[in-house]
Amino acid sequence: MKAEFSRILLSNGFSVPKAEICAELFTVNSLEGVYTHGINRFPGFVKNIKEGYIMPEADPLLLHRAGSLEQWDGMNGPGPLNALFATDRAMEMARENGIGLVALANTNHWMRGGTYGWQAASKGFVFIGWTNTTANMPAWGAKDFRQGNNPLVIALPYRDEAIVLDFAMTQFSYGKMESYQREGKKLPYPGGFDSNGKLTSDPDDIIASQRALPIGYWKGAGLSLLLDIMATILSGGLSTHEISKDKVEHSVSQVFIAINLKSLKNFHAIDHSIHQIIEDLQKSEPETETTKIRYPGENVVKIRNENLLNGIPVNREIWKQITCL
Amino acid sequence: MKAEFSRILLSNGFSVPKAEICAELFTVNSLEGVYTHGINRFPGFVKNIKEGYIMPEADPLLLHRAGSLEQWDGMNGPGPLNALFATDRAMEMARENGIGLVALANTNHWMRGGTYGWQAASKGFVFIGWTNTTANMPAWGAKDFRQGNNPLVIALPYRDEAIVLDFAMTQFSYGKMESYQREGKKLPYPGGFDSNGKLTSDPDDIIASQRALPIGYWKGAGLSLLLDIMATILSGGLSTHEISKDKVEHSVSQVFIAINLKSLKNFHAIDHSIHQIIEDLQKSEPETETTKIRYPGENVVKIRNENLLNGIPVNREIWKQITCL
Repeated sequence: MKAEFSRILLSNGFSVPKAEICAELFTVNSLEGVYTHGINRFPGFVKNIKEGYIMPEADPLLLHRAGSLEQWDGMNGPGPLNALFATDRAMEMARENGIGLVALANTNHWMRGGTYGWQAASKGFVFIGWTNTTANMPAWGAKDFRQGNNPLVIALPYRDEAIVLDFAMTQFSYGKMESYQREGKKLPYPGGFDSNGKLTSDPDDIIASQRALPIGYWKGAGLSLLLDIMATILSGGLSTHEISKDKVEHSVSQVFIAINLKSLKNFHAIDHSIHQIIEDLQKSEPETETTKIRYPGENVVKIRNENLLNGIPVNREIWKQITCL
Repeated sequence: MKAEFSRILLSNGFSVPKAEICAELFTVNSLEGVYTHGINRFPGFVKNIKEGYIMPEADPLLLHRAGSLEQWDGMNGPGPLNALFATDRAMEMARENGIGLVALANTNHWMRGGTYGWQAASKGFVFIGWTNTTANMPAWGAKDFRQGNNPLVIALPYRDEAIVLDFAMTQFSYGKMESYQREGKKLPYPGGFDSNGKLTSDPDDIIASQRALPIGYWKGAGLSLLLDIMATILSGGLSTHEISKDKVEHSVSQVFIAINLKSLKNFHAIDHSIHQIIEDLQKSEPETETTKIRYPGENVVKIRNENLLNGIPVNREIWKQITCL
């Protein structure tokens, strides 16, 4: 899979090292079960390159430095490469000052936000990062799209792996709702409003009304707004309403914060402390006998191991499409 | 109101300057409409002082400094005073280095988290802060309390005021559900599970099952967990499961992050940029003719002005209780 991704990127203007890193990232996202932001999104990524929205060889440019905070211009380069770079810079600053923040303007879709959480956590850092997006969610009390689903990632090291929370501000993505729709199923929980403003679990009704539910109703709508404002003003880049002027999502704004756990007084007690919290969580009384209480990211390790053993499951149609690129 | 609070604090071991600051904070929280974390909670605050959980004159102690990050011990002092102090320290570090983080162990309930958002935003800073709490919410898929509702605050300056998001990880607090219960009303949206594990808007059923809904179902449960872990390991303080060993909530852990907007290259464009985002939000097509699309904190200004004009509405029972303290 990686060789195939790399071949295609090389024939689309990527240098060998950049093609390798990008191909690896799309492959690992698939290996770890996030197919929607791995292999399934690769054709769209290549399309955006061909259409000139993503500049394969653009490197981020430092605009401004203020202590432990830096503002960079992503120069419309590949979102994943820019985000890997920004995470590394935030960690470098955190090594010096305990905490580091990189704000990145004019970048592109970072694919799976969790990638950067795992990247930082595997080196011993707490990671907090988010991106704005094109408008795909109504404000609270509204019917039309004015807010992004602005994914937020929080990660930290745990044992030899990590705890990684990676979530968007809509309860279910449109992709998820469409897959329930295809199978003729209801959503497991209410996921939006129908055209009469009534809360519903019917994906048909939500896709028709375009009123996907923000997590926590007004709370997630508020969080989406604040994430957009912070990404915009910290980077000096575009906000959701500006990004939404173009049909194709590009030139988004992102924030990357790293905190160096090694700089803390209690560094040697941290892993034990996290383990005690997780142990307590796992003592929960489950709702049913088969309910498993998990921490965010726990399942990733399981899927990675399964896929390493059995291979990465691939949709034939998408694979055929990729081999023809 | 402030004079009365001050009188009571002075007779409970507070020095004049500390009593003044604390009385002012409880009064402003009430003035701005957050009665639950202002006047209504004052008797409980005094009770915790009398019982020895809150040390009136304890000052925070610096444990460790690493660049733009500091770890402090709150010495079980008054939560609001410790939080005001920690916010100031984070701003001081952000003045030097763009960003500053204070992690605070062994502190007490900060009352209204928004207080510290307004404090930082009014001085030109972005604020991100949170606290852990005693367990009051089941993990996702569980029936018993193992997680806190861990309020999160994000704030930034806007015009002469601020945009302040201040929310807990449960959809509705037990206080809110009890007030719907007293009025015999259903919640406006599903707020928890009944004893059969079915999503419900009936406050009776949720209070009976004790299964309040995390915002965004599994997403808010994940966020609560990560906020607890970060507060615990960054401060070296107690986690939700340790705090919950005692019946009375005390010795909580908190994090305060400030970002200095004046240190940014685009500082002079920031207010305009926020205004454009808010203007776009307000162009939303409202669900009904009477629906008002608001940003977080907008209503606070309205209530503050009304209460400045007409006085702060006070529950007679609570006021009587306070005058007898």
